[in-house]
Amino acid sequence: MSIPATPSREHLETFPNQFPGRDYLIEHVCPEFTSVCPKTGHPDFATLTFRYVPDATCVELKSLKLYLQAFRNAGIFYENVTNRILDDLVAVLRPRRMTLVAQFTPRGGISSRIVVSHPSGDHLPPAP
Amino acid sequence: MSIPATPSREHLETFPNQFPGRDYLIEHVCPEFTSVCPKTGHPDFATLTFRYVPDATCVELKSLKLYLQAFRNAGIFYENVTNRILDDLVAVLRPRRMTLVAQFTPRGGISSRIVVSHPSGDHLPPAP
Amino acid sequence: MSIPATPSREHLETFPNQFPGRDYLIEHVCPEFTSVCPKTGHPDFATLTFRYVPDATCVELKSLKLYLQAFRNAGIFYENVTNRILDDLVAVLRPRRMTLVAQFTPRGGISSRIVVSHPSGDHLPPAP
Amino acid sequence: MSIPATPSREHLETFPNQFPGRDYLIEHVCPEFTSVCPKTGHPDFATLTFRYVPDATCVELKSLKLYLQAFRNAGIFYENVTNRILDDLVAVLRPRRMTLVAQFTPRGGISSRIVVSHPSGDHLPPAP
Amino acid sequence: MSIPATPSREHLETFPNQFPGRDYLIEHVCPEFTSVCPKTGHPDFATLTFRYVPDATCVELKSLKLYLQAFRNAGIFYENVTNRILDDLVAVLRPRRMTLVAQFTPRGGISSRIVVSHPSGDHLPPAP
Amino acid sequence: MSIPATPSREHLETFPNQFPGRDYLIEHVCPEFTSVCPKTGHPDFATLTFRYVPDATCVELKSLKLYLQAFRNAGIFYENVTNRILDDLVAVLRPRRMTLVAQFTPRGGISSRIVVSHPSGDHLPPAP
Amino acid sequence: MSIPATPSREHLETFPNQFPGRDYLIEHVCPEFTSVCPKTGHPDFATLTFRYVPDATCVELKSLKLYLQAFRNAGIFYENVTNRILDDLVAVLRPRRMTLVAQFTPRGGISSRIVVSHPSGDHLPPAP
Amino acid sequence: MSIPATPSREHLETFPNQFPGRDYLIEHVCPEFTSVCPKTGHPDFATLTFRYVPDATCVELKSLKLYLQAFRNAGIFYENVTNRILDDLVAVLRPRRMTLVAQFTPRGGISSRIVVSHPSGDHLPPAP
Amino acid sequence: MSIPATPSREHLETFPNQFPGRDYLIEHVCPEFTSVCPKTGHPDFATLTFRYVPDATCVELKSLKLYLQAFRNAGIFYENVTNRILDDLVAVLRPRRMTLVAQFTPRGGISSRIVVSHPSGDHLPPAP
Amino acid sequence: MSIPATPSREHLETFPNQFPGRDYLIEHVCPEFTSVCPKTGHPDFATLTFRYVPDATCVELKSLKLYLQAFRNAGIFYENVTNRILDDLVAVLRPRRMTLVAQFTPRGGISSRIVVSHPSGDHLPPAP
Repeated sequence: MSIPATPSREHLETFPNQFPGRDYLIEHVCPEFTSVCPKTGHPDFATLTFRYVPDATCVELKSLKLYLQAFRNAGIFYENVTNRILDDLVAVLRPRRMTLVAQFTPRGGISSRIVVSHPSGDHLPPAP
Repeated sequence: MSIPATPSREHLETFPNQFPGRDYLIEHVCPEFTSVCPKTGHPDFATLTFRYVPDATCVELKSLKLYLQAFRNAGIFYENVTNRILDDLVAVLRPRRMTLVAQFTPRGGISSRIVVSHPSGDHLPPAP
Repeated sequence: MSIPATPSREHLETFPNQFPGRDYLIEHVCPEFTSVCPKTGHPDFATLTFRYVPDATCVELKSLKLYLQAFRNAGIFYENVTNRILDDLVAVLRPRRMTLVAQFTPRGGISSRIVVSHPSGDHLPPAP
Repeated sequence: MSIPATPSREHLETFPNQFPGRDYLIEHVCPEFTSVCPKTGHPDFATLTFRYVPDATCVELKSLKLYLQAFRNAGIFYENVTNRILDDLVAVLRPRRMTLVAQFTPRGGISSRIVVSHPSGDHLPPAP
Repeated sequence: MSIPATPSREHLETFPNQFPGRDYLIEHVCPEFTSVCPKTGHPDFATLTFRYVPDATCVELKSLKLYLQAFRNAGIFYENVTNRILDDLVAVLRPRRMTLVAQFTPRGGISSRIVVSHPSGDHLPPAP
Repeated sequence: MSIPATPSREHLETFPNQFPGRDYLIEHVCPEFTSVCPKTGHPDFATLTFRYVPDATCVELKSLKLYLQAFRNAGIFYENVTNRILDDLVAVLRPRRMTLVAQFTPRGGISSRIVVSHPSGDHLPPAP
Repeated sequence: MSIPATPSREHLETFPNQFPGRDYLIEHVCPEFTSVCPKTGHPDFATLTFRYVPDATCVELKSLKLYLQAFRNAGIFYENVTNRILDDLVAVLRPRRMTLVAQFTPRGGISSRIVVSHPSGDHLPPAP
Repeated sequence: MSIPATPSREHLETFPNQFPGRDYLIEHVCPEFTSVCPKTGHPDFATLTFRYVPDATCVELKSLKLYLQAFRNAGIFYENVTNRILDDLVAVLRPRRMTLVAQFTPRGGISSRIVVSHPSGDHLPPAP
Repeated sequence: MSIPATPSREHLETFPNQFPGRDYLIEHVCPEFTSVCPKTGHPDFATLTFRYVPDATCVELKSLKLYLQAFRNAGIFYENVTNRILDDLVAVLRPRRMTLVAQFTPRGGISSRIVVSHPSGDHLPPAP
Repeated sequence: MSIPATPSREHLETFPNQFPGRDYLIEHVCPEFTSVCPKTGHPDFATLTFRYVPDATCVELKSLKLYLQAFRNAGIFYENVTNRILDDLVAVLRPRRMTLVAQFTPRGGISSRIVVSHPSGDHLPPAP
């Protein structure tokens, strides 16, 4: 298994949810996300937090790690990378609900956070 | 009293709730849970937080400790162990409401949290 | 004034609420509560947090301290002591609402918290 | 300008709210409040947090500081001083909503917090 | 590109929101805001937190930084500067919702926070 | 095994140090110590931190717990109880070096800490 | 016993050190010190930390509290009040070593700390 | 590669130190160590911190992880397991200096820390 | 009194040290320092910490605040501004020892700290 | 200016130290360092802290940022990358003293820190 050259939802793997009769919450926190700013060419760094209620499938953790690593040399803006990753996970997992929070480190003295959800605007609260 | 060889709900003991006329909250936090990943054979570590509203019975703490210790050498995935432990406690206690939060330590740079509730999706908030 | 030999609600004193026309919140936090486990004979330690909306009377702080000190050598379980103290305060103060949170230190690697309210299940939020 | 000898709402000054068309929140935190316990004669210490939605006027900060300093040698109980300060500010500012939180330092091992609001019981949440 | 001599909404630049079909949250935190008190002539310092749901456009970060730097030598009160900055951003971005939190450092032992929203009083919660 | 009625060094048990050829550090932290003020009759609470370099013997933890519990109803001043416990442990263990830090909770708004060592004044630093 | 009208070392009481054969450390932390700025007439607030090695006597805590309360309405500068309190305690206790740390809250955006010792310059480190 | 059945220094692997001309510090922190108490049969949990100055070889991280996992079902006391692990690492690595700090979770309300070094008593401080 | 137009040591005022017979430590922390980067024209922000042992004079706090405010629009590099401020204070105060620590906020993902002392290299540690 | 394709000390730029008569400390903290593990091909993440006493030259911050970014796709072990970066900086700056601390995020449940200094073993402590 090696790091994919470009990020693609085809690298995301799943496994069956063995408790589909129950609405429950899965949260994965990845503090090691990095991509590249398409304007300046400098690297960006973020902590990504995924929260979702699975339906028929769950995301396999190792494939999620490799999928995210493939953004390492991709040039993409904050708002766009966050929306795109949510779209990819929703397409593959078909979750009942999902929220992605991307917290970026400071640039020019300003730090940024983007929060996107499926369905639109339906932000899952932090796991208790 | 010794550690049971395999985890079983039969090892969970209860005592009568002396205040059944009142809906109140009991929270137990166990930061020393460990089981084994069935895929890699490496140990997993988690902090388990139980929150419930008792009905006729409460869980006896020492039996809860021994029941959890029996997972020490069991191979089981994050999502499954969390759902199974909730199922065992619900079967034995028949609580009015119960939530279990399992916070696992990082693997591959990603930490995970699973939140399951009885009835389904009815997460009890953190104790005030 | 000396520490009562056994805990009794008769030791709780009150003073008149001078602002009965207003629903307001009083919170007292006592991090020095200790009683004895009736099973093992070993001491238990807890932080008690009282939150209430007074009606005609407020609890006098020094009498609350002495009332709580009287549990020092009493053998009583977590769930029972928390419910009993709430019952005593409700009987003496007749508050509009009251919540008691008892956070016990770890035993066998597990820490516990009990939350009881009057009326039943009506947990007051933490003071803002 | 000097510290008033006794606390009086007449020392509170205001300035016009230039954005009366908008409901917005103003929060002032004063960690240096001190008064005197009328029972023991010993000083009390508290952090006061004011949160309000202004109507026609806002409180001028320097006058608020001097008004609060005037309690330095006044003998008054926790519950009463908190309610009185709220009453004074409401009388002078006529805010749309106001909450005052007074957090007192420990006495006899117990710390206390009083929360009062105008209108009664309408506690404003903490500023986001 | 240089720092504008006086703060003006004309210096704020935007870029198109590529995901207008989704209601999502953008948060920018600027801990380096400074302006001047018009009464004393001394500098004020604040952390500004912007939270908004974009419609057709998003604010460009570098232009936001320069716009905020232009307040460096402007004399303006806490309440007014917070409301004005919100007005400028709303005029330029036409967001679906926006909240601005300005947390000022202590003066005379009192720290202050101002929270303004568009539409009026509709405060967005902190990003999860 | 039961709690001794009065504190006595005879209740401290030891086990042989299996690595006497090496100078090493043992630290035990007990946050649940309580005794009684001989002047006021009110309980005192402290966290005790023991740090020592063993010679021929180490202290057995359960006996240390019971020895400390025996102070529960003993009337004794801060400075005296700290010195006495050190004397008892030094008499029983004959350690190469030992420091005891007793951190007491606030009384009258003042918290206290007592640090005693054997040999005199030779305070062991916190364990790295 | 009442609060002395003006601060004087005559109000400091002592009790005999029962372990004069040992050099040990006593630390008292008082977070509720307040005096008045002689220049502006506004109150100052500080946390005082005393650390000393007793010789024949120790300071009695209640008298220390009353001695410090007597500064409540005294007008005196940071550097002077810190040196004076040390001088008073050294005169009364004749300690083997003593350090006083006074941490003042911010004024004009600047917070200050004064550290004085007896003998001169021999600062005792924080208790381990 | 699989987890060894019993802990043995033969499972520790090394790689050559490529900078032997320089004295430098390597620190590894393992918060997931667990073994079994030989007296009670219950599991113990600790965070192990290794600090060493390498000579000709460095420890390979994956082999260190597997070596430590082999203690999972071994019955051994705090003091002995800490000394033994240091002995194993010193035997394999022959470091210029090495310190091992083992911080165990609370048992009976008391938490413990053991610090051992090679050469004896020469504790390396926390890495700056 | 107004803010000086350009920073000059002539604006620093002093008052006599009333305890010259004692070596003691004065520490002032100013978290609101700002100047301008001469290369980019963008503002820099720093927390300045002064620690000194006074000789015949102490620095007056209000004049120190005004002296530092005069750097607000001055273009000067991190290393140079820190050395210059130390030189100015040493010239005016002639302290026995002095250290200045300047902690700058992140630029390009990197935060910086400069530590200068008089006499050279003799860094005063943080006040205990 | 663009990111160099491979890391090379030739990309490090300097500027003259204007205060060579003084031994002072410069500290730069870079929490965004990333390279690649040559064994697994997965990315590593670290926070680098540089501390040095300059002689004739100081490192220019933007060139340091670009030099470090060039390691983004380089395969190199923890111990080697830390030693190499120190060697490069020492070769270019010829500092009087320098320490580099590299704190790596957890892998396999173990986090690591490497500390290297010039001259060998002369670790500069954290800046006060």
